[in-house]
Amino acid sequence: MTDKVWRIGVAGLGTVGTGLLKFIAERPDFAPAGGRVAVSGVSARSRSRPRPVDISNLAWFDDPVALANSPDVDLFVELIGGSDGPAKAAVEAALRAGKPVVTANKALIAEHGAELAATAEETGAHLLFEAAVMGGTPAVKMLREAMVGDEIKSVAGILNGTCNYILTEMEATGRSFADVLAEAQRLGYAEADPTMDVGGFDAAHKISILAALAFGCAPNFAAAEIEGIEQVDLLDIRMAKDLGYRIKLVASADRSEDGVLVRVHPSLAPLNHPLAQAGGALNALFIEGTRIGRIFLQGPGAGSGPTAAAVAADIADVMANARRPVFQGPAKALAPFTPVDPAKSMGRAYLRFLVKDEPGVIAAVSETLAEAGVSIESFLQKPVENADGVPIVLTTHAVAESVLKAAIDRIAGLPAVIDRPRLLRIARI
Amino acid sequence: MTDKVWRIGVAGLGTVGTGLLKFIAERPDFAPAGGRVAVSGVSARSRSRPRPVDISNLAWFDDPVALANSPDVDLFVELIGGSDGPAKAAVEAALRAGKPVVTANKALIAEHGAELAATAEETGAHLLFEAAVMGGTPAVKMLREAMVGDEIKSVAGILNGTCNYILTEMEATGRSFADVLAEAQRLGYAEADPTMDVGGFDAAHKISILAALAFGCAPNFAAAEIEGIEQVDLLDIRMAKDLGYRIKLVASADRSEDGVLVRVHPSLAPLNHPLAQAGGALNALFIEGTRIGRIFLQGPGAGSGPTAAAVAADIADVMANARRPVFQGPAKALAPFTPVDPAKSMGRAYLRFLVKDEPGVIAAVSETLAEAGVSIESFLQKPVENADGVPIVLTTHAVAESVLKAAIDRIAGLPAVIDRPRLLRIARI
Repeated sequence: MTDKVWRIGVAGLGTVGTGLLKFIAERPDFAPAGGRVAVSGVSARSRSRPRPVDISNLAWFDDPVALANSPDVDLFVELIGGSDGPAKAAVEAALRAGKPVVTANKALIAEHGAELAATAEETGAHLLFEAAVMGGTPAVKMLREAMVGDEIKSVAGILNGTCNYILTEMEATGRSFADVLAEAQRLGYAEADPTMDVGGFDAAHKISILAALAFGCAPNFAAAEIEGIEQVDLLDIRMAKDLGYRIKLVASADRSEDGVLVRVHPSLAPLNHPLAQAGGALNALFIEGTRIGRIFLQGPGAGSGPTAAAVAADIADVMANARRPVFQGPAKALAPFTPVDPAKSMGRAYLRFLVKDEPGVIAAVSETLAEAGVSIESFLQKPVENADGVPIVLTTHAVAESVLKAAIDRIAGLPAVIDRPRLLRIARI
Repeated sequence: MTDKVWRIGVAGLGTVGTGLLKFIAERPDFAPAGGRVAVSGVSARSRSRPRPVDISNLAWFDDPVALANSPDVDLFVELIGGSDGPAKAAVEAALRAGKPVVTANKALIAEHGAELAATAEETGAHLLFEAAVMGGTPAVKMLREAMVGDEIKSVAGILNGTCNYILTEMEATGRSFADVLAEAQRLGYAEADPTMDVGGFDAAHKISILAALAFGCAPNFAAAEIEGIEQVDLLDIRMAKDLGYRIKLVASADRSEDGVLVRVHPSLAPLNHPLAQAGGALNALFIEGTRIGRIFLQGPGAGSGPTAAAVAADIADVMANARRPVFQGPAKALAPFTPVDPAKSMGRAYLRFLVKDEPGVIAAVSETLAEAGVSIESFLQKPVENADGVPIVLTTHAVAESVLKAAIDRIAGLPAVIDRPRLLRIARI
């Protein structure tokens, strides 16, 4: 309960930055702890670009580092993006000056989180990043603060709204990945260079952050196993549905005695499962703890309103001045988690083969799988129009990834198999 | 980051209290902010009752107020329960002494929250109550801290696991309310006196707390409109399902220009809706904000493990020492929300009539509804074995509650109608 005015510097004026400016102008006294918030300076790539808010009466900085260092800035908000470059330089400058930092930058935290946390804890500055994961849906606060009375075993969810939108549209309209991506780009749902999203890297940044918070480690983005949705075929969406599944880009982090396995994969979720039912741009997350059991959280993963609201909540947290480490323990004591060799991980799989329409093919495929030690759970062969050859899909019982890949190699070598089999994981959810 | 040892006094040693003692014994250094936790004293009704943890080496207090006042207690945990009596006296004593309090007591916070918050804020003591709502699922933290950058329009959900278990079992097994309740009592899922749960009062306590946090008011339990599940008939569960709905005890709080409407009702949720799919003892909550949109949260609402984990997370929050008001603004400035007259509230409804099997009855019922201004959405008449008369069920379009009740009165007076029509709301979710 104070009358202090917090002077905020905002670097990055895209949809989130302008959304934040609008919110602060409307509700400068939003923080329950008291005090007021006023934007004292801004920085962005272009000063003159048209924006939905007037910035002409705010101090302008060409260089975000200068904004972070400005004596008129008490709290620095970084919405530039990118793991390195000006975003990192500006955040470092603010933290070194002992100024609290609020950021929505998942790449920065996933790749340099431990190092930044060490700086923050040295100077006593807050470093908060709720908006980096699931936009306005408070996954970070939940893992960082609400689950500390538990031991988390796994987190798994849908963390990239663009991919979820594309997969939902592919199924609903029967259009190809390329067609739906092009439309998403026209509508502004996907970037001109969509690699970060559709390649799975954005989801991998996010799950790396959640894994660090869940398991008390430093983020270890380099250890994440990443596969995007570029290769997801309409045929697989349809065949999976016939088997009772929907294909989603699932990001997961599982802890075992061997270490932590962080993965992003297009994965099959049972149609009646909440992850399968989270459509469009929704994000969704399961958290499984030893004591609490399973918690499910779902909400909008992006957008100006939700993400700006998450940034505002972080600003209020800075004003409440809780003294917590940035992750789940002092930064100097955090080690990156030990990655588990994915080849050793066990899981169920979906396989699709394109085979020549001739006798004995099913027998050859199933014998090869049996010899390799892969046990079949369900099997579907269905004629498809305009396809070269006949697709066979099957799901397996749990099998080690290395065994599965060896079996696929052997099947790929069978004379009746037309191209390399397609492998998708069945989500462990 | 400190070596401080926090000496905890725990009053109330039921499943949650003993779960907490076990957790603290296993992980005294669980708080990420550093410091250790040690239980220094306990209080309960019976000292000698068998418990899953050994309390013989802990200081015993017959009187929880004496425990709260003990110089060996830095933080007081209240798990006694009840809105008044020893729980209230002990919490007041601790707060007056400036000691932080963590409680799982929904009745206490819902009925005396504003007064206790004022005491807490006068002496600078924390008052935290995550475990009071949804057990280990952090609904309180979410509304209290993560949504402050938004304006909440409504919260609605399933907040009582006992009722949800009973309704789920009734549907699954075709047994009556009384049968399933008796079984739940045998299994320990329901209290010997089940009124708080099945009468809707527990859910009303919880939604009153969430409404206060969502809308920046003092809790106003007295204004809650409450109906339990005692009158839910198997016949309604079946007929609702035929119409595409499942009956759930839904607690909701909606803000409009006129004020806030807080209600607990058995309500129909569409079968494919997440609230309808939250079965057994699960709790589930929708939060709808102007900026963030809709967030959905689901998890275990009770149980020793989850609830003790929520208490532990609150203890860690006290240790992190955030300076926030107890609710969403200084306690002295909080007013109870203005209740909306439920008679004016608009909503869709489900009606069930038992009528004599004779010509002209459907016409009489539908004409009466039309004259009263109630518009029918769907209509179902289905013969039922062993029933006196024929049940007719229908759903209405949105209608003011007062109009609906007047129509029901008129229908009840028709000669062909056997007993008073049954009214259930269709959830606005």
